[in-house]
Amino acid sequence: MQISMSSTALGTSRRMLENLSHILDVGEAFAVARNIDPLVLTGDRLAPDMFPLRRQVQIACDVAKNGLARIAGVEAPRFEDTETSFAELQERIVKTLAFLESVPAEQIDGTEEKPVTFPVGKDSTRTLAGFEYLSSWVLPNLYFHVTMAYAILRHNGVDVGKGDYLRGREARA
Amino acid sequence: MQISMSSTALGTSRRMLENLSHILDVGEAFAVARNIDPLVLTGDRLAPDMFPLRRQVQIACDVAKNGLARIAGVEAPRFEDTETSFAELQERIVKTLAFLESVPAEQIDGTEEKPVTFPVGKDSTRTLAGFEYLSSWVLPNLYFHVTMAYAILRHNGVDVGKGDYLRGREARA
Repeated sequence: MQISMSSTALGTSRRMLENLSHILDVGEAFAVARNIDPLVLTGDRLAPDMFPLRRQVQIACDVAKNGLARIAGVEAPRFEDTETSFAELQERIVKTLAFLESVPAEQIDGTEEKPVTFPVGKDSTRTLAGFEYLSSWVLPNLYFHVTMAYAILRHNGVDVGKGDYLRGREARA
Repeated sequence: MQISMSSTALGTSRRMLENLSHILDVGEAFAVARNIDPLVLTGDRLAPDMFPLRRQVQIACDVAKNGLARIAGVEAPRFEDTETSFAELQERIVKTLAFLESVPAEQIDGTEEKPVTFPVGKDSTRTLAGFEYLSSWVLPNLYFHVTMAYAILRHNGVDVGKGDYLRGREARA
């Protein structure tokens, strides 16, 4: 496969969201096996002023969906951020993946120099060329929130390993 | 800038190692300001069977250096994994960045389909095409270990924010 805006943006987003879904499955199975309220895990965080697991998942989805939408010049669906259970978080990932599949690769390719304006914080925006936006903003953010979700589960004793993060369900096939 | 194997591999590795260096600076300043033995931070981990901060930094460097070396078909320097202090970890990042700079972009570009064989675990190898190796192995690993270093410091109360991870020293300029 050749490197392109679409193979990079779509391929990475799809892989990492699927792997996140797998990691959440391992977390849920851990809670069920030990009779732990699953909301304890989805509400846990690594520091008191950090987002909990459920918010890490919501943001990972938003980064992928909004990033791709801005690059391709299409409208992204909006989600309500009401998920708390593992099942609801999985559904959000499914909806996000469905949106990613709906964006034609031709609208993503060739956007390396296209100016993309995006929100930063509450009331400010930045504009970067498409390739810079993808490589220095979208993907680092996506990896950050997927890794943070993994870190929160790992810190709670869930037996996820780096293979689960890198290869998703394939790691346990 | 056009998307290419070199702009992606080199650009991402350089940016994330520089941002990691900045995050470690913030961690060290935190320890100094509170009279905390810095080795408490560099030796801390999120779970008893997880690598400590110092090893996360060593691996982040190795992923970038060995990944690029395998893609470009050059020999990477080997480091001894003896770093414990922030200063020693910073030195390892500097040495890694110097190696990255030494690899000519022409040897990295056009390697999308080139078979790359790399070690997995202790006694096994995998072979992937260059683009797959970069996008599904090298970069996810690099982001994972940089984010984990951030997570360990954040969990210890160090005041790093996502801007430090995304933009490095520029975030505080």
